[in-house]
Amino acid sequence: MADFDPTTHPHRRFNPLTNEFILVSPHRAKRPWQGQTESLQSTDLPEYDPACYLCPGNTRSGGLVNEKFEHTYAFENDFAAVLPAPAPIAPIAPHPLLATEPVHGGCDVLVFHPRHDLTLSRLTLPDIERVINEWIAIYTKRSQQEGIKYVQIFENKGAMMGCSNPHPHGQVWSLSVIPTLPARELASLERYAESTTETTSEAPKGSQGRSCMLCEYAHVEIGFGTDQGRVVVKNEHWVGVVPWWATWPFEILLLPYKRHISAISDLRGEEKQAFADALSQITIRYDNLFSCLFAYSMGIHQRPTLSGDDVAHLHLHFSPPLLRSASVRKFLVGYELMAEAQRDLTPEQAASRLRALSGEHFLG
Amino acid sequence: MADFDPTTHPHRRFNPLTNEFILVSPHRAKRPWQGQTESLQSTDLPEYDPACYLCPGNTRSGGLVNEKFEHTYAFENDFAAVLPAPAPIAPIAPHPLLATEPVHGGCDVLVFHPRHDLTLSRLTLPDIERVINEWIAIYTKRSQQEGIKYVQIFENKGAMMGCSNPHPHGQVWSLSVIPTLPARELASLERYAESTTETTSEAPKGSQGRSCMLCEYAHVEIGFGTDQGRVVVKNEHWVGVVPWWATWPFEILLLPYKRHISAISDLRGEEKQAFADALSQITIRYDNLFSCLFAYSMGIHQRPTLSGDDVAHLHLHFSPPLLRSASVRKFLVGYELMAEAQRDLTPEQAASRLRALSGEHFLG
Ligand SMILES: [Zn+2]
Ligand SMILES: [Zn+2]
Repeated sequence: MADFDPTTHPHRRFNPLTNEFILVSPHRAKRPWQGQTESLQSTDLPEYDPACYLCPGNTRSGGLVNEKFEHTYAFENDFAAVLPAPAPIAPIAPHPLLATEPVHGGCDVLVFHPRHDLTLSRLTLPDIERVINEWIAIYTKRSQQEGIKYVQIFENKGAMMGCSNPHPHGQVWSLSVIPTLPARELASLERYAESTTETTSEAPKGSQGRSCMLCEYAHVEIGFGTDQGRVVVKNEHWVGVVPWWATWPFEILLLPYKRHISAISDLRGEEKQAFADALSQITIRYDNLFSCLFAYSMGIHQRPTLSGDDVAHLHLHFSPPLLRSASVRKFLVGYELMAEAQRDLTPEQAASRLRALSGEHFLG
Repeated sequence: MADFDPTTHPHRRFNPLTNEFILVSPHRAKRPWQGQTESLQSTDLPEYDPACYLCPGNTRSGGLVNEKFEHTYAFENDFAAVLPAPAPIAPIAPHPLLATEPVHGGCDVLVFHPRHDLTLSRLTLPDIERVINEWIAIYTKRSQQEGIKYVQIFENKGAMMGCSNPHPHGQVWSLSVIPTLPARELASLERYAESTTETTSEAPKGSQGRSCMLCEYAHVEIGFGTDQGRVVVKNEHWVGVVPWWATWPFEILLLPYKRHISAISDLRGEEKQAFADALSQITIRYDNLFSCLFAYSMGIHQRPTLSGDDVAHLHLHFSPPLLRSASVRKFLVGYELMAEAQRDLTPEQAASRLRALSGEHFLG
């Protein structure tokens, strides 16, 4: 029997954050592509687009007019997925299998910069820090509103992710519930903290001296070295890896590794600067991978609100759909929708390709 | 405070099969669409395509030649995601967070019909029964192979689901593990059977006289009537509903409701005929919804293998991405990837639209 080779033999990896497995089929990476290709988003965008509802001074479809902002610009979403409190009381369920839970909250839009054509990958570090400071401000404000239990910051970038407007922006949905995925991750972190006793690990400890799965995981990944393994970028405070259990071909998990940090509001000055640097390094490499404005969804997971439990370890997920070129996307369909996540390229192969790219943006 | 109205007020619904919530934002269904549109798949397909690797007598990319089949045709996938036993033994994990589990198994392709242009929605009932009989044959054969723990039957239909070839076909992946999603569903069914004591429900009982969540759920949905509620199609043995917890806009759960049936191999003659009828009714309505060859992923969940536990209740999931026309798809991105599934249209609204459609295919 042949020795196990992770670049040849089908295997499964376990995701300890979500408690799900992923099926890895590395031998299949060479099969011919016969699927749909995507049209490319132009890299030749104007600095200002009179038809863009996010450019300074323009009118949005709801009729409101944007300020002539000079840095970041935040406003409530004109088509919010949730509405302010109070939510009506739910009716009695006609059957236990048909329960309804009313939800309230608020949805904010955060424009990253007045320039229509500058994504995170092309912003200066001080401009990225301004975005981080706005995230902290919205997180702080929303999480103090009555009944808010989770503040979900995310960015959808690229038409391939259903986002029509190339003007760089993100969203923040603040809800009266902890959503499914963050709740599942928090439960995993809590279980790890409860069950993992003293180890010889030199990783930082979590809150109250307990073990933190993500402090430990970052420590382990850095231990493999930054020129091999799964690390893509690393600076004084942050490390970005293609996680062992990555679902998306070029998925990245970005997190602080020097100390246990539960939320963006806990970041100190130089940790914020290093955060901006890590965001810049990752998004530049993404764009350079296929010389395009690389599409992704990004989300920040952290302590649910200001006053929440410190078991959370601040981290960002980048989930990009592109597979082997700027026009070939991975579909989550069939086996994946019905059974289990699946990938061909191994996380180590993906990390190696991302690491090899220039830190200078291809558009200069 | 206003009374709760499920077509106006944001709320969450719980999916008892997956233990996940879905956020419903019905007030948002009217927001303007500014996203990407998809190119349409032609409905004008030839009966035979010399370039199709699934048409009778043609050569596949692996070099093998298809038989000149007259009904269904099954063969092993030339680019299988898993390989036959024995799998190599996994190395010792360098850290508990980096565990590897080797997987083995086999992947089959099942061509539904020699005609290049006839999807399930346009096959005769006897031809659909032939597909069902092939599913049963593959399920029976694969689940008796050494080490196979789950046989996942599924179909990817449409370029929008990453499936390039319009020739009607499905796949079967048989694995040495129970994949994440079926495993989670089986655990939910087992918990329900354990915890739910005698009720006044007139739903059929599960195995060993225990309660079955899906017997009960089908019974409850039929109780709302077949001209309202969430039922889309119903015949003597099968019911198809847009489930209370549907994620995809026009998602359908199809299951037998007259008795607890664990696997397709347990279907009796007239149950199989009714299964063919239900598959035909659903796929015809899907095509009629936007007058197109409607894209979807479909998967069969059942008893893992022939000799598995009867706690399973046979059911099919249809997950179609189309949202409001043949060219506008729903993207699972941003909030959905990072936090929780979300939908705008309510399941009741979706069921009502599907119910209202003709049972005759728009192409005649
Ligand atoms: Zn997370
Ligand atoms: Zn299921």
